[in-house]
Amino acid sequence: MAVGTNAVQPRVSFDTSPDKYKHWKLSFDGSVATLSMDVQEDAGLSPDYRLKLNSYDLGVDIELADAIDRIRFEHPEIHAVVITSLKERIFCAGANIFMLRGSSHAWKVNFCKFTNETRLAMEDASAHSGLKFLAALNGICAGGGYELALACDEIVLVDDGNSAVSLPETPLLAVLPGTGGLTRVVDKRKVRRDLADVFGTIAEGVKGRRAVEWRLVDAVYPTSQFRHQVEKRAAALAASSDRPSSGPGITLGPLGPTVTDDAVLYSSVSLQIDRAGRVASLTVKAPDAAQPTSPDEILKAGDAFWPLRAFRELDAALLHLRIDEPLIGTVVVRTEGDPARVLAVDQTLIAHADHWLVREIVHFMKRTLKRMDLTARSFFALIEPGSCFAGSLFELALAADRSYMLDDPERPNTIALSAMNGGPLKMSNGLTRLETRFLGMPERVSELLGEGEPFDPPAALDAGLVSFAPDELDWDDEVRLAIEARVALSPDALTGMEANLRFAGPETMETKIFGRLTAWQNWIFQRPNAVGEKGALTAYGSQARPEFDFNRT
Amino acid sequence: MAVGTNAVQPRVSFDTSPDKYKHWKLSFDGSVATLSMDVQEDAGLSPDYRLKLNSYDLGVDIELADAIDRIRFEHPEIHAVVITSLKERIFCAGANIFMLRGSSHAWKVNFCKFTNETRLAMEDASAHSGLKFLAALNGICAGGGYELALACDEIVLVDDGNSAVSLPETPLLAVLPGTGGLTRVVDKRKVRRDLADVFGTIAEGVKGRRAVEWRLVDAVYPTSQFRHQVEKRAAALAASSDRPSSGPGITLGPLGPTVTDDAVLYSSVSLQIDRAGRVASLTVKAPDAAQPTSPDEILKAGDAFWPLRAFRELDAALLHLRIDEPLIGTVVVRTEGDPARVLAVDQTLIAHADHWLVREIVHFMKRTLKRMDLTARSFFALIEPGSCFAGSLFELALAADRSYMLDDPERPNTIALSAMNGGPLKMSNGLTRLETRFLGMPERVSELLGEGEPFDPPAALDAGLVSFAPDELDWDDEVRLAIEARVALSPDALTGMEANLRFAGPETMETKIFGRLTAWQNWIFQRPNAVGEKGALTAYGSQARPEFDFNRT
Repeated sequence: MAVGTNAVQPRVSFDTSPDKYKHWKLSFDGSVATLSMDVQEDAGLSPDYRLKLNSYDLGVDIELADAIDRIRFEHPEIHAVVITSLKERIFCAGANIFMLRGSSHAWKVNFCKFTNETRLAMEDASAHSGLKFLAALNGICAGGGYELALACDEIVLVDDGNSAVSLPETPLLAVLPGTGGLTRVVDKRKVRRDLADVFGTIAEGVKGRRAVEWRLVDAVYPTSQFRHQVEKRAAALAASSDRPSSGPGITLGPLGPTVTDDAVLYSSVSLQIDRAGRVASLTVKAPDAAQPTSPDEILKAGDAFWPLRAFRELDAALLHLRIDEPLIGTVVVRTEGDPARVLAVDQTLIAHADHWLVREIVHFMKRTLKRMDLTARSFFALIEPGSCFAGSLFELALAADRSYMLDDPERPNTIALSAMNGGPLKMSNGLTRLETRFLGMPERVSELLGEGEPFDPPAALDAGLVSFAPDELDWDDEVRLAIEARVALSPDALTGMEANLRFAGPETMETKIFGRLTAWQNWIFQRPNAVGEKGALTAYGSQARPEFDFNRT
Repeated sequence: MAVGTNAVQPRVSFDTSPDKYKHWKLSFDGSVATLSMDVQEDAGLSPDYRLKLNSYDLGVDIELADAIDRIRFEHPEIHAVVITSLKERIFCAGANIFMLRGSSHAWKVNFCKFTNETRLAMEDASAHSGLKFLAALNGICAGGGYELALACDEIVLVDDGNSAVSLPETPLLAVLPGTGGLTRVVDKRKVRRDLADVFGTIAEGVKGRRAVEWRLVDAVYPTSQFRHQVEKRAAALAASSDRPSSGPGITLGPLGPTVTDDAVLYSSVSLQIDRAGRVASLTVKAPDAAQPTSPDEILKAGDAFWPLRAFRELDAALLHLRIDEPLIGTVVVRTEGDPARVLAVDQTLIAHADHWLVREIVHFMKRTLKRMDLTARSFFALIEPGSCFAGSLFELALAADRSYMLDDPERPNTIALSAMNGGPLKMSNGLTRLETRFLGMPERVSELLGEGEPFDPPAALDAGLVSFAPDELDWDDEVRLAIEARVALSPDALTGMEANLRFAGPETMETKIFGRLTAWQNWIFQRPNAVGEKGALTAYGSQARPEFDFNRT
């Protein structure tokens, strides 16, 4: 089973901050921030490869993701971000090929998933938070480097006779530009499909006027004008923003969980690992005290404000599960605390939805829940007395593959909806989780959202809001058997099944990237023509030439 | 490279007719046809497996596809089709597992592609041709059997305490219900995703009232009422049709190509195979005589009417390429003849679009072009003097990954659009090929469609209708080098790249089935947990229990 086995990987920390960045420089000038890639060759996550030519591994992307979050929360006065490089004549060579070559299949898949999420978070900031991105390509921009540029609102390229954009994955490595590249070229930049076909098969890429004509970049500028034009365009992008004209922002402090061998404990989130059973228990707690209700108080509370804190912790727990606990196939999701406190927070978030910080918090919650939708583990929500599956926390039950609600008349147990279930936390398919659940029945969704009261187990079951509502006699056995049955199934078939059932309804560019493009990339990441002994990814950088089995599939 | 190697497979004929069917009985009663599955166990395409319990292989599905085409063309008086089984208490056990187990990866992929196309053709008939389908499940209906039912407009199940519908692929075989099953359950039947999750993981399936409550079937009837209720519902479906109340239809005669070792020659289509170069040349000829212009004449011409004949031949050539010529990775597409004749046919098709037979012909052309979009080979259109890339034949150039048009002022060479490029031949993404090509630029599409004149090479290039227009000095080298470069690339990376670039823009249920679902299924079809030595597909039917690598990916 060598193909499926996940090699032991180093524990990866997603907790970083600009003072610790190894690969990026973040600077600020008025309303424009500049994020400059300057990858340290010898500071990859593993000593097995060197990050030459601004190529990246997961560690580089963790810093990028962190920088974008920090600009959103810590620097509201920033309206546009220039993404560029500090290396002479090189923007970015893309994902490090020696890293990919040495990685297990699961690592490749998780690496690509995270880098996709980071790029989509940039587009989310542009679409919803007035933070625009300009890719200033000061040199060669290949593969994942160009995919990073594609995630920006505008792309400008230096016209120095040498610098080109390229997607050399297919011709050089026999894999796909899988970090959104193929999708964004045709769907976002609207490059004609035949030109995209040519572009995707020539390793040297396209430069100069042709890059503009083919819509691959928005403009090219000679070296002498480049810096000035970048400044001009960044200023124009910044001018379109509706972000505040000045700060202060809030500081995103480290989460500082307590980590033991079988648990990660945060303030509002805990993750318990049962490796023998291949099950984890993920619990989110309601606030244990009243929360701020005005923007000023929220600003003052900063990263201690419960929804931000709890969802940052949830996000970290999900990433930990993905990267560090590949054997945990099933996650039991619980909540604990007073649902009234959660609903009160929801009310605050809705009431001040236009405030920049509240907006950022809600979009962060949305992105975390999307991360859960995209996490290749089975989630079962257990709704028990003492839980608080209300409003935004009920999204956890809606995101789960199934939910079980204990129906014991002697121990009251309810769920509740709020306006947070009606729009702010949309899935990547563009629908809310309620709309996806009741696909094609919008009147039913409105009716449920209009219901002011909590739902007891029979009402929740009748409304279709939970999967099952066993009574106290059946509860233990039914839940236990469901989990035992789940953990016995093939993890691959479950991954594929969940990736199909979770995204009912319309596809968007975002879901296309994770569905169509990623699924094909994952297929190719197993093909001998890429990863076999004589495959192109294996042969890259050696003297050997790849040898292909030319049968088409 | 064992995984990628395509084992030698028997040459498969797609040419059949009801008198030759081994596995289906087709009967007619007024406006209702009944297609009864009665699979001959010992008449599979290979002697290596027995088709027990109405399980199927490609041969069974070829007959089904043929029957549906024949009902559309030969029996316009048929308004509804009942799909049922002649086996006692068994509707269909799905794709034969021993066939799947013994098949190469490429065979599995092509088998699933064809069966998907057949089911989508049923939905096409329902949506566009007034031909409705009722699945009358007289017994156990598992896996691909239920996926066939899902492609029908209505599903009724006998309520005998035993008969259930099920998708046991994940729990029993560690693969997916990949013939549209997972997509149609949530997207078409709108089964709630949590219930679909349960349904997809229990091998025994769901029966009786629960099957109705979960929306898996439309009704259940006790055995005593079953036949009567099926008749009643079929009559109601038939009553909704806009098909003619009586015939005659036309007869679809055999295509009877001349087959040599390196060519398949039809009347209007020829396919030349260069195995050493791994290139095929596919040529479609314009009519060589004037074609009928009125419905009566078209009825009289029957299957000799050029567009029907030519596209049936094209369809057969594409299937032949897929199944019998896996080493041919690149297909050069040419046309020959008088473009005026093609445009005249287009005019006839548009003028009589409401006539049932013309409607069928146009939808057949549409489905054939979709088959081309879904064929995992690179298509390069070569537009040379003497060609007739006009109107419906210009769709071949639009479907191709690239097009090259020779620009030699001394040898006039044009392309032309017709109303057939403006709507009747939509891709599976719901857009025309022109709309997909010029995504987000509808005004440009209208402008081009409004252009009454043919386009010479500079005009075609300027309009973006062709990829390149080399002059006579460059032509030979440029085309040769493009083909040489293409055939040298990894066939897997090309398959993945083309599957992404060809379907720019929106996704539909149809494209989701081929993109998201199929891509994940293809991934799983390579996973050791399914097809490895101890995988579930390998272990099925033996004493061995599957052993899984439980790492999630």
